[in-house]
Amino acid sequence: MTARTDGPVLVVGTGLLGASVGLALRAIGVDVLLEDSSTAALELAADYGAGRPLDAGTSPALVVVAVPPDQIPAVVAGALERFPHALVTDVGSVKQHPLAALRQRGADLSRYLGSHPLAGRERGGPVSARADLFLARPWVVTPHELTAPGQVHTLEDLVLDLGATPVRMTPAEHDASVALVSHLPQLLASLMAARLVDAPHAAVAIAGQGLRDVTRIASSSPELWVQILGANAQAVLPLLDAVAADLDALRAAIREPAQPGARRAVAEVLASGNSGVARLPGKHGQDARFASLVVLIDDRPGQLARLLTEIGEVDVNLEDLRLEHSPGAAIGIVEVSVLPEVRDRLERELTTRGWRVAG
Amino acid sequence: MTARTDGPVLVVGTGLLGASVGLALRAIGVDVLLEDSSTAALELAADYGAGRPLDAGTSPALVVVAVPPDQIPAVVAGALERFPHALVTDVGSVKQHPLAALRQRGADLSRYLGSHPLAGRERGGPVSARADLFLARPWVVTPHELTAPGQVHTLEDLVLDLGATPVRMTPAEHDASVALVSHLPQLLASLMAARLVDAPHAAVAIAGQGLRDVTRIASSSPELWVQILGANAQAVLPLLDAVAADLDALRAAIREPAQPGARRAVAEVLASGNSGVARLPGKHGQDARFASLVVLIDDRPGQLARLLTEIGEVDVNLEDLRLEHSPGAAIGIVEVSVLPEVRDRLERELTTRGWRVAG
Repeated sequence: MTARTDGPVLVVGTGLLGASVGLALRAIGVDVLLEDSSTAALELAADYGAGRPLDAGTSPALVVVAVPPDQIPAVVAGALERFPHALVTDVGSVKQHPLAALRQRGADLSRYLGSHPLAGRERGGPVSARADLFLARPWVVTPHELTAPGQVHTLEDLVLDLGATPVRMTPAEHDASVALVSHLPQLLASLMAARLVDAPHAAVAIAGQGLRDVTRIASSSPELWVQILGANAQAVLPLLDAVAADLDALRAAIREPAQPGARRAVAEVLASGNSGVARLPGKHGQDARFASLVVLIDDRPGQLARLLTEIGEVDVNLEDLRLEHSPGAAIGIVEVSVLPEVRDRLERELTTRGWRVAG
Repeated sequence: MTARTDGPVLVVGTGLLGASVGLALRAIGVDVLLEDSSTAALELAADYGAGRPLDAGTSPALVVVAVPPDQIPAVVAGALERFPHALVTDVGSVKQHPLAALRQRGADLSRYLGSHPLAGRERGGPVSARADLFLARPWVVTPHELTAPGQVHTLEDLVLDLGATPVRMTPAEHDASVALVSHLPQLLASLMAARLVDAPHAAVAIAGQGLRDVTRIASSSPELWVQILGANAQAVLPLLDAVAADLDALRAAIREPAQPGARRAVAEVLASGNSGVARLPGKHGQDARFASLVVLIDDRPGQLARLLTEIGEVDVNLEDLRLEHSPGAAIGIVEVSVLPEVRDRLERELTTRGWRVAG
């Protein structure tokens, strides 16, 4: 693959995201310079092959700032001053806050173009970095009134070089979008999981896949989220207020379940939830929901592989797959999602081959 | 398999749960009688092999009431009167409410023993019924002060015959437990999903796996949940109040993010979420978390099967598997969970075999 990006690219901050950017660019031959306030982190990232330490003689064409949210404005402002011909971007989860902070500092906004890759991992640090971290993920680019079209193309070329999908939004659109699809679910997952801290063992022992799904992201880092939520407070707050209003209506209805209208109020929250979840796109960016099939397998090495081999043999492509936990049991419950038109054929084929299909 | 249960067993209500009980018992030779207020549903269940219609001459030893929550007290009371020697159970999601309603009706509580299988499917009706629906699922049995030990054993024998795992709780313990691990997550998932109804397309288009997981169960039936929440209002309400209190603290902190203590208040919600999610047991009922490995695969039939075949070949058992959606892309991201001690070996083996392991 030939790189669209002209180097050298300076990556400031060699944690998970920065080191991954470096690895991906090095893999396609782009010259990558690295900088980090921690010499140990810098050397580690260089040893991993993410780039070479910045030297005084080299001037980057593009600077990618990948530092914790709190440090973004100062580090971006510094880069704009030190490299007066470079385009500077950052990869933080919030976009209006750093732009406003830079404006307040009198920074040269005509060379700052913020962006945000929707990628990450539960573990951070350069050791977790991967050249393919951004593969197939959306990467939002947020032009503002001083951004020139050519700069958007330069940054989108970088995004494409990293294997990600560029998405264009204004900083305000971006912040409202992530408040809804990332920050609010994070908080609701945490609020749910917080209720489990003092739960009796017997209660958590009968928990099923539903609770597990709702709370999975509640294991995220509090330090990082404090910074993200602090910076995006303006967009998150109206959503929390709306949830609080719905929650109050629900509590009133559940407090007096026999009152007229109480059942309807509860039904409306559930029905809105039905409509909302139906809006989430499928794997290929469609709005369609797939058809699913539940298959029971023995909990032995190779069983799931054998099932999927046979699904492949009958030429059906899996759109999604879910392996369910079965507390205390040696049996696996596999839910496979396929295109609706092949579902019934797959059920017949698997049943014929002796699989226990639970519909 | 020889049945522990002595028939005949009468199943009242031939929907998903009732018909599945019938199918499972028929499969091990127990005589099953069926009853349903809908003749069509009854005949369908009988045609499926879930049992034979109740006739005037047969007297059941055990009655399983599997009707919608609202109808449970009347149907159980009717069964206790009609079959004065039978033990009667129900399979509803709430246990104190029917017991109290039966007490109020003056029913013979010494022969009523409520229970609750934690099993189900998104689709209802006898057509979705399966003999293995309850396999490896917890089935809570809730003795009360008038229950004789022998009755608990009789019901637990039925549970074992159905392949489920009996769990003993008082009705109050049960209701508090399901309020926490089932009813509260349902409501929070619905509250989150309800926010998506009017969301801009651009926002839902960048949604990732986190939001998808948090909202998956929000597609449940409003009608059913209105009945469940109405019957368990007493246990659900204090949990909703606690969430509302946490949410209020969070909103205050986010409204004034620069105030002293604001960051700490946000961090505490997140940190409690960390602690809470860590309490959920792993697949084999342990408290341990598994180690995970992310592998990138081409989105072609058979690719996932090939991966899992090779995982089986190196003799590693999958504890969990998650296939991630990659909006707009033809690449699949597979996260496999394995026992921590085999993780690094698996990473080496897969890398050697040419898989792209993303750590």
